[in-house]
Amino acid sequence: MRIEIICTGDEVLSGKTVNTNFSHISRRLLEEGLPVTWETTVGDDRPTLIEAFRLASQRADAVIVNGGLGPTKDDLSQEVAAEAAGVGLVLWPEWLAKIEAFYAERGRAMPPNNRKQAMLPEGADLVDNPVGTACGFQIDIGKARFYFTPGVPREVYKMLEDQLIPRLRQLFGVKQVNYLKRFHSFGMGESRVDNVLSGVEDLAPAGAVKLGFQAHYPQLETKLAVQAPTLEQAKAIVAPVAEEVRKRLGTVIMAEDDETLEGVILDGLRAIGGDVAVAEVGTFGHVGVRLAAADPNGEVFRRSANTNRRHDLATLLDLASEDEALVENAATAVRVQTGATHGVAVLVDTSGARDPQIEIAIATADHVIRRGSNLVGNAERVRVGAVEMTLDSLRRLLTGQPVTETLDFEKAPK
Amino acid sequence: MRIEIICTGDEVLSGKTVNTNFSHISRRLLEEGLPVTWETTVGDDRPTLIEAFRLASQRADAVIVNGGLGPTKDDLSQEVAAEAAGVGLVLWPEWLAKIEAFYAERGRAMPPNNRKQAMLPEGADLVDNPVGTACGFQIDIGKARFYFTPGVPREVYKMLEDQLIPRLRQLFGVKQVNYLKRFHSFGMGESRVDNVLSGVEDLAPAGAVKLGFQAHYPQLETKLAVQAPTLEQAKAIVAPVAEEVRKRLGTVIMAEDDETLEGVILDGLRAIGGDVAVAEVGTFGHVGVRLAAADPNGEVFRRSANTNRRHDLATLLDLASEDEALVENAATAVRVQTGATHGVAVLVDTSGARDPQIEIAIATADHVIRRGSNLVGNAERVRVGAVEMTLDSLRRLLTGQPVTETLDFEKAPK
Repeated sequence: MRIEIICTGDEVLSGKTVNTNFSHISRRLLEEGLPVTWETTVGDDRPTLIEAFRLASQRADAVIVNGGLGPTKDDLSQEVAAEAAGVGLVLWPEWLAKIEAFYAERGRAMPPNNRKQAMLPEGADLVDNPVGTACGFQIDIGKARFYFTPGVPREVYKMLEDQLIPRLRQLFGVKQVNYLKRFHSFGMGESRVDNVLSGVEDLAPAGAVKLGFQAHYPQLETKLAVQAPTLEQAKAIVAPVAEEVRKRLGTVIMAEDDETLEGVILDGLRAIGGDVAVAEVGTFGHVGVRLAAADPNGEVFRRSANTNRRHDLATLLDLASEDEALVENAATAVRVQTGATHGVAVLVDTSGARDPQIEIAIATADHVIRRGSNLVGNAERVRVGAVEMTLDSLRRLLTGQPVTETLDFEKAPK
Repeated sequence: MRIEIICTGDEVLSGKTVNTNFSHISRRLLEEGLPVTWETTVGDDRPTLIEAFRLASQRADAVIVNGGLGPTKDDLSQEVAAEAAGVGLVLWPEWLAKIEAFYAERGRAMPPNNRKQAMLPEGADLVDNPVGTACGFQIDIGKARFYFTPGVPREVYKMLEDQLIPRLRQLFGVKQVNYLKRFHSFGMGESRVDNVLSGVEDLAPAGAVKLGFQAHYPQLETKLAVQAPTLEQAKAIVAPVAEEVRKRLGTVIMAEDDETLEGVILDGLRAIGGDVAVAEVGTFGHVGVRLAAADPNGEVFRRSANTNRRHDLATLLDLASEDEALVENAATAVRVQTGATHGVAVLVDTSGARDPQIEIAIATADHVIRRGSNLVGNAERVRVGAVEMTLDSLRRLLTGQPVTETLDFEKAPK
């Protein structure tokens, strides 16, 4: 099974556009048991495209070509595909009708050069694009089956899921279903998680479950990939491994699968009819951003005050800025001012002048929890870590877990 | 002049890492008059690497290989380079001494497998990497000169500027200096800017100045690229064109070159000994984020209040939430509360329930300016546009430009 991807377009080749189409397609294919072996990027240049198609057609069994299906004259994929396959171009009246309908719905006449988008190489099969006017198609060139896809991310991502993955699975006789169980954690580094989870796959039949990681600081994603004839069987195979992962990682797991840290916090607040107000110093306001974006209607997120000086926060809340208990007082003050069930304050100083550099407090009606922390890394890393630690502290409190556990990224106070 | 880039590594090929190294290198090379013609991504697999090197060595004059210079056994670039060039590997004692010194400075002994990083193909020339232990090198394979670079962005970006660009310019006899004059604007779409600037290059000798754009909504970057024997000459050639761009685009230009919108605002406030406080509804707090990040010491950014409900903002500021003048009252209230010279308020409603969907007010000691706007696009686009419009309104006020000009992205009130 040799799968290649050819990305086309001057925008991508010149670096003007970062090639996220490729990384998305390749990652999804790998998750479906369809690893990509080679990627080529070339510009909107006929001889170069021909050469790229020729080389891929000699090496690969399947080739996905991305881009070049647009209506303008620098979109060359159909023409070059026809030339490489040694055939002519023919009009697909059904697709032309679809493009015309697309424009009619929007109250506009189809520009004449869109007709080009309905011209496919003779012998090609249409690959449907329900969300755009660029027509996908497949055709055999040399020993490889080529799949042509549009460059617009929304369009190619949909085509990938609905059309390409099923077709490639069939082409390569992949009968298995793929299932990915995911855990999102904060506070344990990738290498330590790898150690802690050593041998966990052995709770499933040999080779059935594959453990992997994706670190995007401050979060780490732990993945259990499994293949099985049905989704139910896949879930059954992975279940004991997942349970063991939960046991070994314990409180650092913030969320699973499509859950997010923010989502878990919102659910926790909703469950108790609670809400939250925030005061932030030195985080550039990112605790508030995260909660606001997750709760656009303001059901449980009351507000956040964002400032870079302790003095400005103290003035705002009518507190003494030099008070050692400023963080606790601020958490209490925003709670009382808004009438929220939870008040959260975080004070970050990346100048090196304060120890600890991060102070976090969460106030409820009954009591105030405080934690101090010094993180490893430069100012940006400390700030990003402080935001995560603030949200994670609230998550821990709402889910009944210990709030002040020491994390891998922390260093001892000076 | 045929330049290719080969990106290596399973992380990149599998899509786990988005290939920003490639886009950065390609964009910089193009700016230096060194366009890339072909890019290949392959994994950490010896036969595939050999084949990729062989093909590139037949097509190209120069090849940059990125990645694979690390100390682990899946880092194969030196070995494969030697095999492709038909030579053996030899130890470079100077580089080994450098790696040992690197570790010694950090109080650690060099791990034995780092010795591998000082093994280069016979006949290779070292390409210095002052910021890491991976040794860059160049060697001729087939008809092409290959340049091997580390995968760590910081390391390859520095090597690109200090070593690769000068070497490639020399290899291809590029004697010219490249100069890029840039304008950052908000409020005029790329195609209209293109129209408005039609023929502007003609103010320089034929073909001397190339006009280009990079759109990253809500901002648009307009670029004038020029080549000349010296930087002074380049600047002199571009000067009348730049002046004409300023004249034609006028007030939509927010900043030039490395300036930013936030930077222009901070400079404007500093110049008058001013400062600013913000109140935001429905922006998820991003006006405050932008100002806070640009002013980490809180010199002129006092604070921002971030909430998603008008009611919550009104409660915070002791205002009536149903008052039609809420946005003006909020701008005035945050100004008075903080004693800042400028109070800014922005209220965004993407639900479709309000018209206009965006309300902005800026209060100073003397008066309050208000503007309302409806933007084209989905909720996310409206929100991002509202943040930019808020900051841009403040920029316009501080630089003495009209605050309420209609922009391309705006639609008429319902």
